[in-house]
Amino acid sequence: MEVLRTRDELRQALDRSPRPVGLVPTMGWLHAGHRSLIARARSETATVVVTIFVNPRQFDDPSDLDRYPRSEAHDVAICAAEGADLIWAPPVTEVYPPGFDTTVAVGAIASPLEGAARPGHFDGVATVVAVLFGLIRAERAYFGCKDFQQLRVIDRMARDLAIGTEVVGCPTVREPDGLAMSSRNVHLSAGERAAAPVLHRALVAGRDAWAAGERDADRLRRIVAEMLAAEPLAEPEYVSCADARTLVELEVVDRPALLSLAVRFGPTRLIDNELLDGSEG
Amino acid sequence: MEVLRTRDELRQALDRSPRPVGLVPTMGWLHAGHRSLIARARSETATVVVTIFVNPRQFDDPSDLDRYPRSEAHDVAICAAEGADLIWAPPVTEVYPPGFDTTVAVGAIASPLEGAARPGHFDGVATVVAVLFGLIRAERAYFGCKDFQQLRVIDRMARDLAIGTEVVGCPTVREPDGLAMSSRNVHLSAGERAAAPVLHRALVAGRDAWAAGERDADRLRRIVAEMLAAEPLAEPEYVSCADARTLVELEVVDRPALLSLAVRFGPTRLIDNELLDGSEG
Repeated sequence: MEVLRTRDELRQALDRSPRPVGLVPTMGWLHAGHRSLIARARSETATVVVTIFVNPRQFDDPSDLDRYPRSEAHDVAICAAEGADLIWAPPVTEVYPPGFDTTVAVGAIASPLEGAARPGHFDGVATVVAVLFGLIRAERAYFGCKDFQQLRVIDRMARDLAIGTEVVGCPTVREPDGLAMSSRNVHLSAGERAAAPVLHRALVAGRDAWAAGERDADRLRRIVAEMLAAEPLAEPEYVSCADARTLVELEVVDRPALLSLAVRFGPTRLIDNELLDGSEG
Repeated sequence: MEVLRTRDELRQALDRSPRPVGLVPTMGWLHAGHRSLIARARSETATVVVTIFVNPRQFDDPSDLDRYPRSEAHDVAICAAEGADLIWAPPVTEVYPPGFDTTVAVGAIASPLEGAARPGHFDGVATVVAVLFGLIRAERAYFGCKDFQQLRVIDRMARDLAIGTEVVGCPTVREPDGLAMSSRNVHLSAGERAAAPVLHRALVAGRDAWAAGERDADRLRRIVAEMLAAEPLAEPEYVSCADARTLVELEVVDRPALLSLAVRFGPTRLIDNELLDGSEG
C-alpha cells in the first residue's frame, strides 16, 4: 500500500494500477463505517483508493474544522488492514492549487435539511468530490447512507457532469447501542455518549409507527421529537419526514420517505436517518 | 463523418475512435473562425469531434436565444469539408436530462466584463462545457480568442476540476475589413455591417497607441471610446483595459493587458479584443 501526497504521485500510481478502480473518499479518523466502505470497494474493484482529506470548503463552522479529529497513522493502519491499495492524503494546496476558483453547486436536493442548516456545505462537498472524481476517474465511489443527502447530492452531480463514476450508497454502520458511526462521536463526553443512542431509538420509534400504519408525517415527526425531548442533553436542530426522492417535507407518507434528524450534544452536531420504504419496517 | 444525437450514440462512436480526441464545441452557424478551430484540431488529433448545441443556459436574454441563427445542414457541410470525424448535435434533453440540477461556477475571472454584462452567462458556459468535457473526454479542446474571457473561464474550470482536457486558445479570424467572425454578424443590417469594422479599428488604434508607448489605461480606453463614438450606429456597452491575467481594470499598463469592448448595433451585441503584450504591436 502506498501513501501519496501530490496529484502527480496519484496519477502515476493510478497509471500503473489495474482497473476497475474503487474510490472511498474520507476525511480521515476512520471508523467501522469507513471500513465497511473499503471492504465493499475491495470486493468489487481491482484497485482500491482511499482519500484522506479534511476539506475546508465544506465546513460552514470554522471551529468545527479546527477540532475535526485527525490521526493519519491510525487511518493508514485501517486502510492497510482492509486491503486498500492506494491512499491519497494530500495537503490543501494539492486539492486546491493556487488560483483555484471553481464551485460546483447542486440545486434542489441540496437545499433543505443539511443544506439549510449548513450554508455552503454542499457546495464544498460537490466541489471537492468533483475534483476527486476528476483526478481519480474511478469506476465506482462508495459513500455511507448516514449522510443520505450528501449521497444524493454527489450522485446528482456525478450524473449531471457525466463524470463516469458510479456513486454507491452503503448501509450505515452502528455501535452495538445503535449510535451511527461518525468521526465526530469522539467529541462526545461520557454523558453525551451515553445519551446519544436516543437518535437511533427515536428514528426507530418513528419507523415502527410508520410500519404499524401511521402515514401522517407530522405525527411521525412528533414521535421522533418527543423521544428526543425526553433526553436533556440532546438539542434537536431539525426532525424531518421528507420525500426520499426530492427531500421535500411530506404531509402524508404516501411514497418512500426519509425520516432524518440533526441533534446537538453540546458543541457536537450529529445526524442520522431511517428510510421508510417498502423494503423496511 | 457521423452525426450523432444521444449521449449513448456519442459514447459508442468515441469507443471505436482513435485517441487523441480533439473537441470543437460550437453553437452552430459555423463560420471561418470555427473552420480554423476544426482545422487546428484536425492537424493535432486523431479524432475530431464537433459539437453543435445552442446552450439555453448561457443566454441571459431570451430573445437573443430565440433569434440565435441555426442551420444544421450548412454546419454539417462545413464540418465535412474540414475533415471532422464526429458531430454531436443533441437535443436539449440529451445535454440536460430530466432532473439535471448542477451548476459549475467560476469566480473572479468570470465576474467583470461579459460576466457583469450578462448575469449567469458564464455559469451556463462553464456548466455546459463541463458536461461536454465529461462526455467526450477529449485530450484537447479548441476555443477562439475572440471570446477571451470565456476561454479563461473554461481553462480555469477544466484545471480546477482536474478534467484532463487541455484548453487551447486559437487566434480570432476576421473578415477582410477587420470585423471578427461571429455567428451574430448575420443579424447586422447592411448599414450596421458597413459600420461594424469600427470595433476592430478602435481596438487597433488603442493597440497602436500602446505600441507607441502610451501606458495610461484611461487614455487608451478613451482612444477606443472616441473612435466608437464617431460611429452613430455603434452603442458601446463597455470599453476595458484590464490585466490580461486577472481581467481587473488597470490604471497603468505595466503588464500584459487585454483591450476589449462590447458594442450594440441595434439589437445585435458584438464583442472583440486585442491583447497588449510583448509579442504584439
